Amino acid sequence: MSKTSEKAQQYARQHAEKFQEELFELLRFPSISGDPAFKKDIERTAEWLVKHLHSLGIDNARVIPSAGLPVVYGDWLGAGPDKPTVLVYGHYDVVPAEMEDGWDTPPFEPVVKDGKIYARGATDNKGQLFIHIKAVESYLETSGEAPVNIKILLEGEEEIASPNLTPLIKEHLDLLKANLCVISDTSMRAIEEPSITHSLRGMTYIEIEIEGPKEDLHSGLWGGAAHNPALALVEILGKLYNDDKTIAVPGFYDDVVPLTQAEREMISKTDLSAEQYKETTGVPAIWGDQNYTIRERISARPTLDINGMWSGWTGPGPKTIIPQKAGAKLSSRLVGNQDPHKIFELIKDYIESITPETVKVKVDLLTTGLPALIPFDIPEMQAASRAYEKGWGYTPVFTRGGGSIPVVTDIANILNIPVVMMGFGLDSDGLHSPNEHYTLAMFQRGIETAIIYLDELA
Amino acid sequence: MSKTSEKAQQYARQHAEKFQEELFELLRFPSISGDPAFKKDIERTAEWLVKHLHSLGIDNARVIPSAGLPVVYGDWLGAGPDKPTVLVYGHYDVVPAEMEDGWDTPPFEPVVKDGKIYARGATDNKGQLFIHIKAVESYLETSGEAPVNIKILLEGEEEIASPNLTPLIKEHLDLLKANLCVISDTSMRAIEEPSITHSLRGMTYIEIEIEGPKEDLHSGLWGGAAHNPALALVEILGKLYNDDKTIAVPGFYDDVVPLTQAEREMISKTDLSAEQYKETTGVPAIWGDQNYTIRERISARPTLDINGMWSGWTGPGPKTIIPQKAGAKLSSRLVGNQDPHKIFELIKDYIESITPETVKVKVDLLTTGLPALIPFDIPEMQAASRAYEKGWGYTPVFTRGGGSIPVVTDIANILNIPVVMMGFGLDSDGLHSPNEHYTLAMFQRGIETAIIYLDELA
Repeated sequence: MSKTSEKAQQYARQHAEKFQEELFELLRFPSISGDPAFKKDIERTAEWLVKHLHSLGIDNARVIPSAGLPVVYGDWLGAGPDKPTVLVYGHYDVVPAEMEDGWDTPPFEPVVKDGKIYARGATDNKGQLFIHIKAVESYLETSGEAPVNIKILLEGEEEIASPNLTPLIKEHLDLLKANLCVISDTSMRAIEEPSITHSLRGMTYIEIEIEGPKEDLHSGLWGGAAHNPALALVEILGKLYNDDKTIAVPGFYDDVVPLTQAEREMISKTDLSAEQYKETTGVPAIWGDQNYTIRERISARPTLDINGMWSGWTGPGPKTIIPQKAGAKLSSRLVGNQDPHKIFELIKDYIESITPETVKVKVDLLTTGLPALIPFDIPEMQAASRAYEKGWGYTPVFTRGGGSIPVVTDIANILNIPVVMMGFGLDSDGLHSPNEHYTLAMFQRGIETAIIYLDELA
Repeated sequence: MSKTSEKAQQYARQHAEKFQEELFELLRFPSISGDPAFKKDIERTAEWLVKHLHSLGIDNARVIPSAGLPVVYGDWLGAGPDKPTVLVYGHYDVVPAEMEDGWDTPPFEPVVKDGKIYARGATDNKGQLFIHIKAVESYLETSGEAPVNIKILLEGEEEIASPNLTPLIKEHLDLLKANLCVISDTSMRAIEEPSITHSLRGMTYIEIEIEGPKEDLHSGLWGGAAHNPALALVEILGKLYNDDKTIAVPGFYDDVVPLTQAEREMISKTDLSAEQYKETTGVPAIWGDQNYTIRERISARPTLDINGMWSGWTGPGPKTIIPQKAGAKLSSRLVGNQDPHKIFELIKDYIESITPETVKVKVDLLTTGLPALIPFDIPEMQAASRAYEKGWGYTPVFTRGGGSIPVVTDIANILNIPVVMMGFGLDSDGLHSPNEHYTLAMFQRGIETAIIYLDELA
């Protein structure tokens, strides 16, 4: 470990409280990208980040205009052309959160309880992106320089599948040129079991709408001869799965690369027991394709989930209508080599083929993301492994992540660099759920690991 | 036709505009019984009705305290003990209505377009109950007396299944003692085809909730091994019907009294073609049990409808969660001799039996109503038939109504009197739908028919 790295680590330990207070400032912004009502908050968050990077000596920090919500960029290139350049990617936007969803404390008023920060975005991704900013600060404040060149790219549309980031990357190929990209937006099972994610699931997100009568009908006057759109929807969606819990859409699995025995053995290192899964999620029993282990099902196999559903009267008391419409949001997590657009067409064709003539159906594509698979025997991955050993205290395993970070595949392909996913979250952090939280110890160890990683890359 | 009846009719014709303006006042109250937020509006509507009855000379008009929303009562007994007493029942509450549901004009700001009054409650039931009040007014203002004794009972909880009216009737047996009850809360296919309803469907209204994980889960981290509650719900509700569109709940049809050939012939007098049904409702095709005609399906056969459904994220954009819960409101229209509580138990048992161990299910009973069947060869029914011939201009047919007026069975059984359902609405009035309306010509002819009916009963 270099002298400058040791000084940076010492600084990080001494300034733990300041770092936490700054993170709280960032968490207080309700930077919800999925709801246009929060556009101003998103903009204020981007402005705060620019100002914060400035305060660390990243003088050229600024907002890069995009076709959508603001992207924050800043770099420190003082290490010179002989040293590698690391592109740090993170996202400052969050998914919606309201007290009524079941939060114990307001989602945008961070609090610490039992060593954990409770707030929307605490782990996904404000807490984790802040780790890299604080690692850079720790170098610049102690040595006036970092061991490698740093480029920081923070977007505000990750939770809505980054619709404008790909064109932005293509327009700024020179600005974003780097030797590797590091992203901390994944998680581990326990603090003693860090992991580096080398694979992510892709996504096809669909909205379905069934329409029957031209308006809501009185169920007493008309009921018995009209196909209730909510009934039609449940009859259709009830056919998404076969009895053995495989997805019934014809051709759905055609492009799935089968897991090799070697891969299954690696996955088994992080296997999850039924008891662990039940305890963490609260489900009464395990479900899914019996031919795969739980860890395989949630990370290496494709899924098809109903994310939302609506029809008719949902207020208090009874209302005796046949609803005009019924709708659902569906998303499919994809694995290599499934193509999101092809999967959309397969699902659309299937749904249309099983919709009876008694109702009309509309199937729309909302968003897509490609699955990603990065080799883990490359130097950038191995350096990350050493950084965990030294900074975190445990040797990481390389795992497949079940989630989707659409930008990973884009960065890898467009900038033609490896993407190293150094997760600093816990599987149980409750991201996208009420009472999302982030463990302070993870935040602190993450900063130290990130400091060492920059040193290992030099 | 008696002299007093002729004078009353003349008065009604001369005061058509005044009657309409008064009805508008009544329609402006958002007297929504299903939502506690409108309790004050309900109370103001009851106060307005009491004041209005007072202004017609019904001096003892008042609110009768009930365990729920106010009941309005008033009587005129000047015809003396030798004349029959008619109990007029109506309801001044309405189902919810908001512009966003698809109204062209605000639902509580009545307007006349093409000879129709557009407003929530225009036909169901404010317009129709007002007919009887205006008939009584027409007698009292012209002759100072009516041909029979009149008792008026107007409730504010019909749209939430009259939970407090039965005890109220039982507590006021003497006050409500009458020879017959007349209710105008049903409809005809066309103005040339008036009908007297002698049967109504009952109701069992149920709410179902499926619960899976203890909170919303990130579908990427956990998807593949948890039974999505929305998927479980659609799988369960997708089994409500058999392929032949009969209801799959075991025992559901056990107590249905089969239709006789004679009944089917009477029903065929008001048959509805597929084209008519499709045009009025806007459905792309007819659905239902092929063993019955459309009119039989919507009036003489039981149904099971999904009235509302909800789960997870329904806002704009994508949200990649496995929802914690999914729910639905279900209602079953019942025919003689189905028992609403037995039907609830059958549906509950069936749903529980097809719910897998991977989720938890809760099935709750919201409301019930008994089906009703009244003979139509009795004098009170025949007098109604003559009133239509003279006042409306067409001979009515006796029909079965598909809707539910829970109080009909209660009034018939508890007060031991026939209930004559003289509908003055049109099937196409859009009750419970956006742009509910009531034809002015029906309102006017209804008042004249009601005037003659009182005379025919004398």
